[in-house]
Amino acid sequence: MDVYVSGIGITKFGRSKDPLEIMMARAAALALKDAATENVDAIYIGVMNVEEFVGDSNFATLLADTLGLTGIPSTRVETASSTGAGAFETGFYAVASGHLKHVLVLAGEMMTHLPRAKTTRILSEVIDRSERRYGATMPALAAMVAQRYGREHRLSFQRLGEILAQVAVKNHHNGSFNPYAQFQKEITRDDYFKSQMVSYPLRLYDCAPITDGACALVLTSEPGRVKVSGIGHATDTSAVRHRASLTTFNSTKEAALKAYTMAQVNPQDIQFAEVHDAFTLFEIIGTEDLGFFAPGEGWKALEENKTGLKGTLPINPSGGLKSRGHPVGASGLAQMVEMVLQLRGEAGNERQLERAGVGLAQSIGGLGNNNIVTILERSDRKKVQVEGWKPDFHPELKVLKKEIVPPPAEGPGRLETFTVLYATPEGFKSPLTLGLVRAGGGELVMACNPDYRNPKGLKIGQRVHLSMKEGLYLFERRTWWSQWVSRWRKKSKD
Amino acid sequence: MDVYVSGIGITKFGRSKDPLEIMMARAAALALKDAATENVDAIYIGVMNVEEFVGDSNFATLLADTLGLTGIPSTRVETASSTGAGAFETGFYAVASGHLKHVLVLAGEMMTHLPRAKTTRILSEVIDRSERRYGATMPALAAMVAQRYGREHRLSFQRLGEILAQVAVKNHHNGSFNPYAQFQKEITRDDYFKSQMVSYPLRLYDCAPITDGACALVLTSEPGRVKVSGIGHATDTSAVRHRASLTTFNSTKEAALKAYTMAQVNPQDIQFAEVHDAFTLFEIIGTEDLGFFAPGEGWKALEENKTGLKGTLPINPSGGLKSRGHPVGASGLAQMVEMVLQLRGEAGNERQLERAGVGLAQSIGGLGNNNIVTILERSDRKKVQVEGWKPDFHPELKVLKKEIVPPPAEGPGRLETFTVLYATPEGFKSPLTLGLVRAGGGELVMACNPDYRNPKGLKIGQRVHLSMKEGLYLFERRTWWSQWVSRWRKKSKD
Repeated sequence: MDVYVSGIGITKFGRSKDPLEIMMARAAALALKDAATENVDAIYIGVMNVEEFVGDSNFATLLADTLGLTGIPSTRVETASSTGAGAFETGFYAVASGHLKHVLVLAGEMMTHLPRAKTTRILSEVIDRSERRYGATMPALAAMVAQRYGREHRLSFQRLGEILAQVAVKNHHNGSFNPYAQFQKEITRDDYFKSQMVSYPLRLYDCAPITDGACALVLTSEPGRVKVSGIGHATDTSAVRHRASLTTFNSTKEAALKAYTMAQVNPQDIQFAEVHDAFTLFEIIGTEDLGFFAPGEGWKALEENKTGLKGTLPINPSGGLKSRGHPVGASGLAQMVEMVLQLRGEAGNERQLERAGVGLAQSIGGLGNNNIVTILERSDRKKVQVEGWKPDFHPELKVLKKEIVPPPAEGPGRLETFTVLYATPEGFKSPLTLGLVRAGGGELVMACNPDYRNPKGLKIGQRVHLSMKEGLYLFERRTWWSQWVSRWRKKSKD
Repeated sequence: MDVYVSGIGITKFGRSKDPLEIMMARAAALALKDAATENVDAIYIGVMNVEEFVGDSNFATLLADTLGLTGIPSTRVETASSTGAGAFETGFYAVASGHLKHVLVLAGEMMTHLPRAKTTRILSEVIDRSERRYGATMPALAAMVAQRYGREHRLSFQRLGEILAQVAVKNHHNGSFNPYAQFQKEITRDDYFKSQMVSYPLRLYDCAPITDGACALVLTSEPGRVKVSGIGHATDTSAVRHRASLTTFNSTKEAALKAYTMAQVNPQDIQFAEVHDAFTLFEIIGTEDLGFFAPGEGWKALEENKTGLKGTLPINPSGGLKSRGHPVGASGLAQMVEMVLQLRGEAGNERQLERAGVGLAQSIGGLGNNNIVTILERSDRKKVQVEGWKPDFHPELKVLKKEIVPPPAEGPGRLETFTVLYATPEGFKSPLTLGLVRAGGGELVMACNPDYRNPKGLKIGQRVHLSMKEGLYLFERRTWWSQWVSRWRKKSKD
């Protein structure tokens, strides 16, 4: 059964004075009003970690009750930071089954009320347990991806910074026209370079902010203006170190392939996209993984302004997570809300795109391991569904085939990527130097280095020495003087 | 599209030495083997509170990866203590939509590794926030329901105990034949009465235990032996004090009505049922709410042994939550596993029911506010689907129609029900006397009484005086001597 979007609602993202359920109820009321219905057959609630952010459990029930919809089935859905898109997907299947006619999809998160180090710790719980033990945070892992991207595409630290700055400047420009965005202001290249380093080489302006926010959407089987034409969902390894590539996400590619196939469209048919820019670089990687641009060409398209509001393929017309804000459970659904506004031609003069017939949203869960791609289109587009249609999109999936063997506790290795993390989670000292080291047998391991507090001394490809202390891998540079220092230290201890 | 169960898997419930994801992976492997498939299109993970019990987020991804199903879409679903049934429902819609062919539904919880007071505190987070502030736990609320049930059906404390003991004895008897049950042993009436008081009048043997456990099930659109014929889901008020009745759950009734309608069966067609006996009395209330017995007659049917393994309507042939154990996220799905075993005739000599063609499971989320009813049947049952069929089940929904007005901070009231809680959550002293008091305007309020540590002095219907201290309602008996005591206290303070 075909599924349509009949209503949307969103609160202004930022810092909320209201409790989470009230903020979410406001968004729901707007969506129900927009859909001109008060009757829904079920509610799907997307919240990522209401247990730790707010201290509540059984939140789906609380929401139904708060909405005055006591009695209506209510289910909480969670897929890490793609939760909003996960709730949308779940609601889509419920309506597509023919058993339910109207469902309310409602997503939100409340995050700004906690100390930053605690929020960072909670957000880090989406990371593989053994990588998290090192103090790795989402920005730290994204920074290691960025370092690697720079290396693979021969971009210097300065050049990479210039590119990332452009993503931030573009998305803040778009967001300046979005009345629901957390930051409705332009920023300059200089603002970007003045912003503090969060995890080398990523700055504050590379990272989506910590945000409270809620949005809602009504799905229905009654034909309407906006149709859900494709959904794809895929996971990847929990651990980043188990991937064959750090600079491309299999989960995006697989999810996109499924979504394109269901919608019977090709990447070149997409007229605009909301891409999960939790970190500036992720927008660039996203546009490559989605087949919009060739691998390693995403940053060029950005520099040529193809992805601007007036470009050939506008990316994040809403301002993206960067400027709209990133209430983790809500972001995936906020992308859908923007798409519906664009498809209906209601995004407002400055932000409304000229060509807005088919839009795509990509939402990332965790460090690129629970990703969802959704395609919405105007129902009045002329299209004939073809049985067995296949998309003109053949992504290369980079999968580590071999068995993962735990590497030895000590031995030589090579530094595959690294970062110096300044905004550490609860319980970790700042700065914290983390690296992914390729051990002798070829396996990647997460390792830390208590000696380096300055990224200048480290370089991708360096030979390092791995050792183990209290169950954690340490890495050290293997220069003549570093060996001398470590020997001297040992001696002075003895 | 019709949906069938093609495979089941369950681990022995109890205390697990393995981490949660390994325990769940074992159950999944069994289900996939039973379904004779390695390919599923999606995974639905039911865990209630993995964030606080285990300290992980992004658990759906971790599971897909642990299962060796990296890449497959994985979504976490949660509906409080009915989570396992919620994941099942979500998987059902996904297959029914026709978009997915095989899905793995996998549920589990890890609870035994934490100190009891902490587990109690985490479990209490499903309770309405303002009731939880008083230190109310699930056993405390269930105890207040039990007190009220006794009062409404004129059962003395002793008589009520005898009835509840029978539920416990019956379910332990059934569980003694279940190789997956946490407690595979019979208990006697004496054991029951010797067990410690948890929350007056409920004893340890009235409460389902704290348990680790996992189970899994494969749903498919390929016709097979067991068919999912009906699912219903409904919520109720988050707060218990906002209900018109404490001794019947609207959410069960509404969910049952939907499930019967979808399955085109009546309560009298059901041949056996798994009923959510997190507390012994809930089994009795469940059999009334599901339309098996008239309101207030459930305990009589139990006494007549109608609900025993050899009775006319066996309830909880598995041993129920009481004896199988209650890993909160898994219990709802464990009920389905038992139903499939019974429908297939694979429950084992002692436990296998003679008539097992249609089974029903009722799972309770929170304090009866997110309930799910599922009906499974043998595919070879002869049945003709009738358009517009309506069930012969007309439950009376007891809904509080009027606006809820916060009652005054001080004034007279009547004690509607009460308990003395001995197993208090983290941060509360034991024993703790809690009551639901009907204030002057007719509203129910939760209140505590620091003076009473012995339930003997209290009685339902007593006139009490409500006052407020540090934002909490206190209640005191209004006898001449209690007034004297309170005046004397005030004086001695001055």
